[in-house]
Formats: sequence, structure tokens, C-alpha cells
Amino acid sequence: MYAIAKTKRGPGAEIIETDIPKIKDNEILVKVKVASICGSDVHIYEWNEWAASRIKKIPLIFGHEFAGEVVEVGKNVTNVVEGDFISAETHIVDNVCYQCRTGRKHVCLNTKIIGVDIDGAFAEYVAIPAENAWINDKDLEPELASIQEPLGNAVHTVLPADNIEDIAGKTVGVFGCGPIGLMSIAVVKTLGAAMVIATEKGNKTRIELAKKMGADYVFDVDETPNVVKEILDITNGQGVDIAFEMSGAASALKEAFQVLTPGGRLSILGLQSHNVEIDINNWIVFKGIKIYGIVGRRMYETWYQVKGLLKIKEFREKLKHIITHKFSMKEFDKGMQVIIEKKAAKVVLEPKW
Amino acid sequence: MYAIAKTKRGPGAEIIETDIPKIKDNEILVKVKVASICGSDVHIYEWNEWAASRIKKIPLIFGHEFAGEVVEVGKNVTNVVEGDFISAETHIVDNVCYQCRTGRKHVCLNTKIIGVDIDGAFAEYVAIPAENAWINDKDLEPELASIQEPLGNAVHTVLPADNIEDIAGKTVGVFGCGPIGLMSIAVVKTLGAAMVIATEKGNKTRIELAKKMGADYVFDVDETPNVVKEILDITNGQGVDIAFEMSGAASALKEAFQVLTPGGRLSILGLQSHNVEIDINNWIVFKGIKIYGIVGRRMYETWYQVKGLLKIKEFREKLKHIITHKFSMKEFDKGMQVIIEKKAAKVVLEPKW
Amino acid sequence: MYAIAKTKRGPGAEIIETDIPKIKDNEILVKVKVASICGSDVHIYEWNEWAASRIKKIPLIFGHEFAGEVVEVGKNVTNVVEGDFISAETHIVDNVCYQCRTGRKHVCLNTKIIGVDIDGAFAEYVAIPAENAWINDKDLEPELASIQEPLGNAVHTVLPADNIEDIAGKTVGVFGCGPIGLMSIAVVKTLGAAMVIATEKGNKTRIELAKKMGADYVFDVDETPNVVKEILDITNGQGVDIAFEMSGAASALKEAFQVLTPGGRLSILGLQSHNVEIDINNWIVFKGIKIYGIVGRRMYETWYQVKGLLKIKEFREKLKHIITHKFSMKEFDKGMQVIIEKKAAKVVLEPKW
Amino acid sequence: MYAIAKTKRGPGAEIIETDIPKIKDNEILVKVKVASICGSDVHIYEWNEWAASRIKKIPLIFGHEFAGEVVEVGKNVTNVVEGDFISAETHIVDNVCYQCRTGRKHVCLNTKIIGVDIDGAFAEYVAIPAENAWINDKDLEPELASIQEPLGNAVHTVLPADNIEDIAGKTVGVFGCGPIGLMSIAVVKTLGAAMVIATEKGNKTRIELAKKMGADYVFDVDETPNVVKEILDITNGQGVDIAFEMSGAASALKEAFQVLTPGGRLSILGLQSHNVEIDINNWIVFKGIKIYGIVGRRMYETWYQVKGLLKIKEFREKLKHIITHKFSMKEFDKGMQVIIEKKAAKVVLEPKW
Repeated sequence: MYAIAKTKRGPGAEIIETDIPKIKDNEILVKVKVASICGSDVHIYEWNEWAASRIKKIPLIFGHEFAGEVVEVGKNVTNVVEGDFISAETHIVDNVCYQCRTGRKHVCLNTKIIGVDIDGAFAEYVAIPAENAWINDKDLEPELASIQEPLGNAVHTVLPADNIEDIAGKTVGVFGCGPIGLMSIAVVKTLGAAMVIATEKGNKTRIELAKKMGADYVFDVDETPNVVKEILDITNGQGVDIAFEMSGAASALKEAFQVLTPGGRLSILGLQSHNVEIDINNWIVFKGIKIYGIVGRRMYETWYQVKGLLKIKEFREKLKHIITHKFSMKEFDKGMQVIIEKKAAKVVLEPKW
Repeated sequence: MYAIAKTKRGPGAEIIETDIPKIKDNEILVKVKVASICGSDVHIYEWNEWAASRIKKIPLIFGHEFAGEVVEVGKNVTNVVEGDFISAETHIVDNVCYQCRTGRKHVCLNTKIIGVDIDGAFAEYVAIPAENAWINDKDLEPELASIQEPLGNAVHTVLPADNIEDIAGKTVGVFGCGPIGLMSIAVVKTLGAAMVIATEKGNKTRIELAKKMGADYVFDVDETPNVVKEILDITNGQGVDIAFEMSGAASALKEAFQVLTPGGRLSILGLQSHNVEIDINNWIVFKGIKIYGIVGRRMYETWYQVKGLLKIKEFREKLKHIITHKFSMKEFDKGMQVIIEKKAAKVVLEPKW
Repeated sequence: MYAIAKTKRGPGAEIIETDIPKIKDNEILVKVKVASICGSDVHIYEWNEWAASRIKKIPLIFGHEFAGEVVEVGKNVTNVVEGDFISAETHIVDNVCYQCRTGRKHVCLNTKIIGVDIDGAFAEYVAIPAENAWINDKDLEPELASIQEPLGNAVHTVLPADNIEDIAGKTVGVFGCGPIGLMSIAVVKTLGAAMVIATEKGNKTRIELAKKMGADYVFDVDETPNVVKEILDITNGQGVDIAFEMSGAASALKEAFQVLTPGGRLSILGLQSHNVEIDINNWIVFKGIKIYGIVGRRMYETWYQVKGLLKIKEFREKLKHIITHKFSMKEFDKGMQVIIEKKAAKVVLEPKW
Repeated sequence: MYAIAKTKRGPGAEIIETDIPKIKDNEILVKVKVASICGSDVHIYEWNEWAASRIKKIPLIFGHEFAGEVVEVGKNVTNVVEGDFISAETHIVDNVCYQCRTGRKHVCLNTKIIGVDIDGAFAEYVAIPAENAWINDKDLEPELASIQEPLGNAVHTVLPADNIEDIAGKTVGVFGCGPIGLMSIAVVKTLGAAMVIATEKGNKTRIELAKKMGADYVFDVDETPNVVKEILDITNGQGVDIAFEMSGAASALKEAFQVLTPGGRLSILGLQSHNVEIDINNWIVFKGIKIYGIVGRRMYETWYQVKGLLKIKEFREKLKHIITHKFSMKEFDKGMQVIIEKKAAKVVLEPKW
């Protein structure tokens, strides 16, 4: 079969021809219908610092957001049958550790990630553990099915475990309008947020999309000298009830803290390039706030939430706007480029070679 | 001033002329713009068993759902000023008991209710404690402002205190489509419910409105031999994630228990005429469900949620359908009749005499 | 090997000689060190209505509370090794259904129970799925290790999923002092309850043990004309914050409702013989209470809680009092009799023949 | 009356003679029985940077931890009577803002603090709003009654609002053994923590007290080259489930993050002298942890928890150890000195002049 692989520890990737994967007793083989490009795929492609230290296996077929058809199942598999149309949870966990046995599989210390630690989905076929398969409704558009994994990140940001605070009627600040930030806007608007204020740095494509997702205000921080003041003004000095840090920018994190109302909640999904100086007293203690670190998706509460939300037509229609480009896998370089050049939100790839 | 009052312990009510209420230092005087009729107002009007045992004060100006303008404030009042456009929380609580001091004012044992224990709002003016005033946006339609109190009941049913379960992507069963049941349908659809299944007994006006509120399925139990089976079929045998008993019918409560998925949640707002036989083992224990009794509104978390939700235009537009009739207070008998004859959902009254 | 089995559908049980179980790839073989008798074992022994309708497999080796040593592991087993000292979660679940994939394995619709649906632990050896094994500290007394399963029921009653209410400083009512009721008293005292009030009907052994567990007040309802009044008096009319129905008596459930403070929480574990008439309005709605149905144990949050609590010496010492009798398995009839005659709390059996 | 007051903006304090305070209609006058010294009182005494910027009113009678007898009540007061033995919540809030009306009075933006913004309790008499009075059991020792306010901080750290995670059976790390840190150890041991690991820097008095409070391990970081490794070793590499930062040291905060288990919870009460560099990715996001900023006490949920816990004799006895010194108010300088010299934990003052 054909696949897109890192074949050496450096920038770039190439199309290779290789054997169709052999599955184990607890695995399934999936014929990929569509895959999509995650920011981390771009990091692997560009071979940034994170990728250089994180990637062990070379050659590696990368890519982890995808949807496809089950064409073979291992003999111990009971939850999936041939012909099922599936997406995949990309965290492969051990199921036996403390975290896994107490409802926190998404932070299993022995997690392996599809397309990072094992071969992934930028290929004709991919083999995954059956328990990671998520069976889709047959009529779900493959592109939407593929982006359920990052959509799960967005839903998890909005609705983390152990969080009792409702979105209903709340004011929400979204800091960073990459694909997951955009999705989180669409999610909170679908969950009854009264007002959504978003910020983005310079990327006009994303700013337009943030409005399409339903943000009531979108600030380009490049053109807004004091975004904290703007947000406080809009909220009558009260600030936002809930904030999502989705950008990975230290300045955005700082702004999120500053505009959060006392007793409010901050979810942090964005990864920072460096440590960040935090004003523990004024941003956290005196305000009595709650902070949630967000990684992956709840396995599988989040997936059920995603499935349920995708039954809502208006929500599905909104999400489609986030898919700005479609290429064949043969043209994957183009897909990487439009992201690097900040022209794209989400890029999907079709297994055409 | 004119007012609608019970002047004797028996059916009916009459228009009286009486003094404008004098306010205490912690009270405000409100000029009523619009009031609306609650089911309990009809009980007081008809003088049913509940009313006969509950009502102590005669003569009593009744009515508690209203919106109006503040025309005078007591000297200790700090939260409201003359000219404010307000609605009112109708529970007057003692603020010093265990329940009040631990976030449960809505179940204060010393609660007094406006229009039940003290004179109410079917009048030109009404005096209330300032702390019960809820300041509305100036541009909120008075009819919507008036029905915020029952809307608060609906929001409270959906989002009770101490409830960690989200509506997002869930399947919800609503048993009973009176005004608050109808509102709860609109609320859960606005909070991202994937599917809403409602039941109602015979009342075609309500069944039509349930569809307008966004219910995906509405069953008339008079025409459905086995509504439990229907709901289980729709949900692939899994049942609903969340159920609201809004009807006060024992049969509906039983159905709610039977279709609730294991581990699901039931909120009970509907009052029953008699004790109900409950299958503790199969409906509660083996299923491991959670049940919330719902009374009043959280003071004032629910009111903020209501305010936030009312900022959503689609939600406001939906709610207006529930207001099926408008009369002058002079014609209050007509308002009572359309409800008694099951022709109405919510009826509003204007202070015209 | 020897085992205690139901060999016919009727009262009694007998010692049989049978093959040591063969394990599957995902199973382990355990040499039983000690087992204990659950109330449901007595029902199976006596062959009451529940047993007659519930038990399908005959002959059936029954018994499900036990501790033992792993002597063989299937080839796919990764979480347990030979020589481990284990107890067992008795619910064997499918791991693929909605409930299992959303943190509610204890209400999996496809649950099989050890000693009920498959052969159990009143035997020299028992085979169980490896995932049901709970590895004990080597120095935990085997008797305590065996009763962790019902102790888990008690901890689950005290700390159900999705419950945000703390025990710290609260007043707790425990209705019914069978072994699990007794354990729940010990648990809440260990979790900082300010006051525990227990009720029991007639059984002096249990009443004494309730005091030993730390109950501040224990009422024998046979000798207390108005236990509701007594409890309200003790609590200055305020009632208990939290109530556990552990008796299966309708009268106790009624009392629990009546003494619960508004906004309080009721956990129901006791199974009733018949439907119970509930005053929905006054017991649930007007009081705004929360009710949790309790079955099994959270898999495996509860087990970790149990493990942690058993590290506390005072707690371990208290629990030992609940084990009132020890017999050899050969004498199992005697073990059943002391329970039937209400002379015992928990009875343990040693595999001696 | 006599009182201890700051009479100028600089180090020190002096005993003054002044009028007994006049109360307003909603206030009460309290005859002080005992007061205790908080760390912030020392800051005011020493006039550190925080005090210099925070204190507006001079002269100021300071001191806010106290217990006393109500000797006069304003005419609008309903919750307290003359002769009541009370302690006080020290946050005076506006009761009308968003935070106050949604269960978050402890972060009211208009908070005034007794002994900081208005005259306090290092005096013969103090006037406070009646709603801030907390009525004690008559037989509670005055010293314990006085330290309920910081004990409330400890209980709030352990049991913050909106926190669903139980202490039962958990491993807890306490970073910093000042009086509130010490109290938090006693609290979690009383709530069923399986293991408590505490750290302290150099102060031998506190290290001894930490053991007395029930800490299973106490590390002096001055003598422990790698406390993170020590804690990970003790917990089999798993880390602690729950961590409390009670020291205000950046190094301790860092250690707390590093030893927290994935999905764990961190409460931060300690105030830092400077911003702290945080590794957002590895400490918060990838671990999926929750963080709570802790200020004040929940009004009044925490007070009820404190009251309930103080009914437990073992807990009361433990707490008394924290009170290491007692002086007359005349000798307040000595009280300040033993704290500054790190010889004391909690110091109480009696109104003797």
C-alpha cells in the first residue's frame, strides 16, 4: 500500500510503498476514507524541537485523525464488525493502571499515540486496537467523522471531568482560534453560552471563521492595544465566567487570567513554548478560580458527547466551515503548506495517490 | 388601586379597590406592567384542596409572576433604584437558617411566597423585599420578563444544584407539556441536547407547542398504547439519559423511571395528587440512578442562567409561542377559563381595568 | 476439588467433588484462602423467590466474597501474576456498552455475577477474569480482604458517583444495621461525620455492633414508638444531612425521607420486598432532595477508596468486630444458620473440608 | 477601652485607649474573650510591603481572629441575641453582586476585612455586622473558637466549592506547615486520607507539630536534597492524589506540581512574593490536573463543616497542640516576637491590660 512517512529524522516526509499492516487478535484493519492534518502532524513534518524529542520510531507513517471502513477484525474483537464505518480515539492506553481504572484513561502514563508511537493513518490502511474504534453513523460525512478527534479536544476543553459548572447563559472567552479553538466556539454556542468573546493573533482566515462559529466579538490582538480592557468593558467590568486558552501564547494565557471573573473557570489546552510567569496571588488565589489542564478526550464520555452534538444539524453545518482545504494524500505537501502559511484552518486528505 | 383578590374562602375572585401598599425600609414598590397566570393561581381561583389548606390570608391579592417598574425604594435598599425594570423571585426567605446559609435558599423552611402568603401582583402595584427584585435589561419584552419565574423552574429542573451531568449531546425525556414542561424542552434544545422526546396527555395545544419548542418526538399518551416501548425503540433500547417529570401524573412518573438509562438522572417537578407506588429495586437501586426534587429556583444562580439564555434570540422567539393569550386584568376570568378549558399554555394579564 | 453447590432448584446446598476449573486466556485461577457469606448467599441457600427467579445455572458453586492466591494466569493476562494475593470485584461486565464506556460499569446491562451466574468461591479454587482481580497488600488479613466486596458497597453508598456533597462535619442517618449498614457507619465516622444516628429492628447483636462502629445514637425501632421524632429532636428539628437506606424495610425508607433535611441526600441500597408508597411532594419535591440508587461498587474508584481506608489502623480494627463467626466450609450449614437466626453479622468460611 | 492599634504607617503597634465602638442597626457589639494572631497581623505589625500598600485606615485596631460574647445588638438584627458566644467570619461582603448572589461571597469584589479595612479584635470590644457572627456552642473552648477562622481556611483548602473529589483513602501532600498547613493535615486525617506527606523548611517546631497532626511523613526541605524523588518513592512513583500549597514558596509550589498524580488536584492558598515560572505543558496540560485558588472561607458552608468537625473530640485535642503560646494583649509584642523568631505556631492573646 501507499503511505506518507517520515523516513529520516529531519524535515519533510515522503510517500512510501509498504505492506498492508498485519493485525493482532485484539486489532482491526481499517481502509482509510479520509484523514485530516493536526498541528502536531505539521510539527512532525517540519521536525521541530518537540518532534525531534518525541518521535522514536523511524520510519513512521504519521497522521492520526481519520475515518474509514473496517475490513478485517482480530479474533478476540467483539465490539466492531467488518463494514463498520469508524473513527478512532488516538490514545492507546494500558487499561490497568491507577489512572485507567479511575476514569482518567486520557492521562494514562503508558499512553501510545497512533501516528506518533505506532504507524498512523496517512495511508491506505491502518491497524488499530479494536477498543479504540468509534463506530460512526453510516450517514456521517467522512470529513466530519475524521475531525471528531480534535472536536473531542474542544468538547473536552468545554466539559472537563469533575466540572460542575454549566455553560448555560455564561460568558465565555476563547483565546486562540486555531481549529480546536474555533470548534470550541461552535460548541459553547451550541450549549447555550450567552456571549462568546474570542481573540486571535493576525490570522484573518481564522478571525472570519471565529465569527462564522458564532463568536459575538473577535479581537485581533495585533490590532487591539489592550484586549483585557476591551473584554472587561464588554462585560461591564465583570469579566468572563469561563476562559479557554487555546493558543499556546503566554500573552493570551495572561489575558485569560486577567479577564476571568472571581470564582471563574479556566481550561488550558494550548501548549506553551516556554515556562510562563504566573501571578499566583492575583490571578489564582485572590480570585478563587479553578483551572483545568486539558489533554486528549475523556474515554469515552467525550466521544458520546461529540456523537450527540453531531446529531444537531446547525452544529454540523457550522463545523464544515472549519474544513477549508481538501487534497489528495499525493499532494500532502500542499496541505502542510497552506497550514504553515496560515491560509487554512483544517485540511483533509483523501487516500488518492 | 385596583387588584384581583380572593375575598372569601371559596371558588372565584373579584376586582377590589384598595390602598397602594406601603413599603418597609427594605422593600420596594413596583408598578406592574404585566403579570402572568401560574397553575397555582388557577388552583387559588378554583379553590381546590391545596388552596384551601395552603392559603391563610384573606383577603389576598394573588398573582406572583410579573414584571414592572420600581417607583419607590425603602431607605435601606441598595441594590435597586427607582426606574429599574424588574421581575421578582417569589420566595421570600429568612437568610439566616442552615439552608439559606448553605446555598439552598429555595428550600428555606421559613419561606413566604408572594401572592400566596402576602399580597401579590394581580394589581396596579405590589410591594416586595428589595432582595427579591431581579433587574431586567430595559429592552426585554415585558411578557418574557414576567414568565422568567416559571422559566426559572424549568432551568432549575434542567440544571439543579450539585448536578455534574451535562445536557450536551444527551437524550432527554420530558413527561408533561404544561408551560414549564414546554419551557424545559426549549431549554434543553438550547443547551445541546441531541434528542428530546416529550409526552402529553390529550392536550393538542400543548402537543403542537412541544414540537415548536423543538421536541423531536411528542407522544400523546391517550393515543399511544405503550409509550415506554416507543421510547425504548427510538433510543435503541437504551432509554433516555435524563428525564423530567413535569406532569404530576403517577403514570408519567412511572414511565420516566422505566425509560431512564442505568446511571441516568431524573428531575421531578410535577406535584402528585396522591402517594405513588415506586418499584425501589428495579427503578432506582439496580439502575443506579440519581433523582432530584425540584422546587423554586436557585437564588440566584438560576436567575443568572435565565438572564443569559434570554440573550439568545432564537430562544426568546421560541418562548413567545408559549404565551398563547393576553387579557386585561379586568378580564381575568377569561384568562382563568382558557387555562381550565385546556386551550392555553401561558396567559398574560395587563393591568387595565 | 471440594465445593459448596446448589445441585437442585430448592432449599439447601451440598458439598460436591468436582474438577478444578480450567481458565481461559483472560482468566486467572485462584486458590481460595477465605470466603464470606453475603445475604444473597443465604437467599440462594434458602431458595427464596428472588433466588428461584434469578439463578439459571444448576449445579452452581455459589459464594462471591473471597480472598485467595493466584495460582495460574491465562496467556493474555497482564495485570496479575502468580502468587498475587487478591480479592475480586464480582461484577463481570462487557466493557463495550454505553454504561461501561461512560464510567458506569457497575450498571452494565450485560453484567454476570460470580457465584450467581458463574461458579463462585465457596470452593477450593475459583476461576475469574483477570480484570476482576484486585491485588491486596500481602499483609492484609484474609478475612478483611474477603469482606472488601461488601465494604465496597458501603463505601459506594457513602460516596456515589457524581456526588459533590462531603461527609465532613455532617449528620448522617443510617437505617438498617446489617453488615453493610454497619460498615457504612464505620466509614462515615472515618470520613469526619459529626454525628451518626442509626436505626435497627430488634437485632441486639447488630445494635451493639452499631455502637462499636461509632454510631452516636442507635434506635431499636421495636422499642421506639416514634423514631422520626427522636431523630428530629436530636438534630434540633433540622434532621439529618445525609441518609442511607440499608434495611430494605419500607418503614425505614419512609423514616429516612421524613428526617432528611431540605436539600439533603439519600442513598438507597436496601432492596424492598414490594413496591413502596412514596409521598413525592413532601418527601422529594418540596424538600429539593437528591436520591442515589446504589448497586455494586464503582469499578474501580470504590476499590481504591477501600484500599486507602484499609490503611487506617483504627478503621481496620473496627471492621473486624463485624466478623462475628468463622467456620470451615464443611460446616457451611452452621454459618447459614447463625445468620438466619440473627445471631451473626458477617460470617467467614475457611476452605477446610 | 484598651486596644492594640497601628497609629502610624511604619513598624510596630501600640496600646491605645479609645471609645467603645458604637454599633449600627445591623451590627453587634462583642466583648472579646480571646483573639489570635494571624500571619497577616505580623505583616501589619512589621509593616511589610503588602501591609504598606493594603492598609488605608490609620489609626487601625487590628486583629481579626477572635471569640467573644455579644453584649449589644442593633435594632435590625435577627440572627443573634445578647449573651451569644460568637466567632466571626472576617469578610464583610456586599451581598448584592454577581459573586455574592451565586454562592461565591468569599470572592466578593467589595469585600472589607475586619482588622484590615475596619477596626478589629485586638481590643476589649469589637463591632461587626450581625451577619458575620458565627454562634458557637457554649462549651467550645474560647481558644478553639478563636482559631476557627484560619481553620476555615484549612477546611476550604481541603474542600473547595465545586470540587467533587473525595479525600477518602487518598494520598495527600501538604507543602508548608504554618498554622493553616498544620490544620489542613489534621483535617485530611480526620476525613479519611490514607497517607499524608508534609514538607516544611527548617522550622523544627512546625515539623514536630506536623507529626502530631498525623502526617505520615514530614520532610525538612533544608535537609532533603530531592524531596520530589522522596515523595515519588513513597508513593510507588504514582505521586500524591491531592496537594496543598500552603507555604508561599515558589520551590514548594513547583514540588507540588511535580509530585501530583495525573488527573490530581492542587489547592493553592499560599501567597507568593513574586510571580512564579510555571511549566504549563508538563505540570498542568499533559497531566490533566485541576487547580483551585483558595481565599477565605465559603460563606457559610465552610463554617458549618468546621462546626461539625469540632464536635469530634480527637480533632479538637489535636488542634490544641497548634496553640503554642498564650499572652495577655498587654504583652502583644512578645506574641509577635515568638512568631517572627519561628518558635511558635498559633499564638493567642487574652484581653488583659
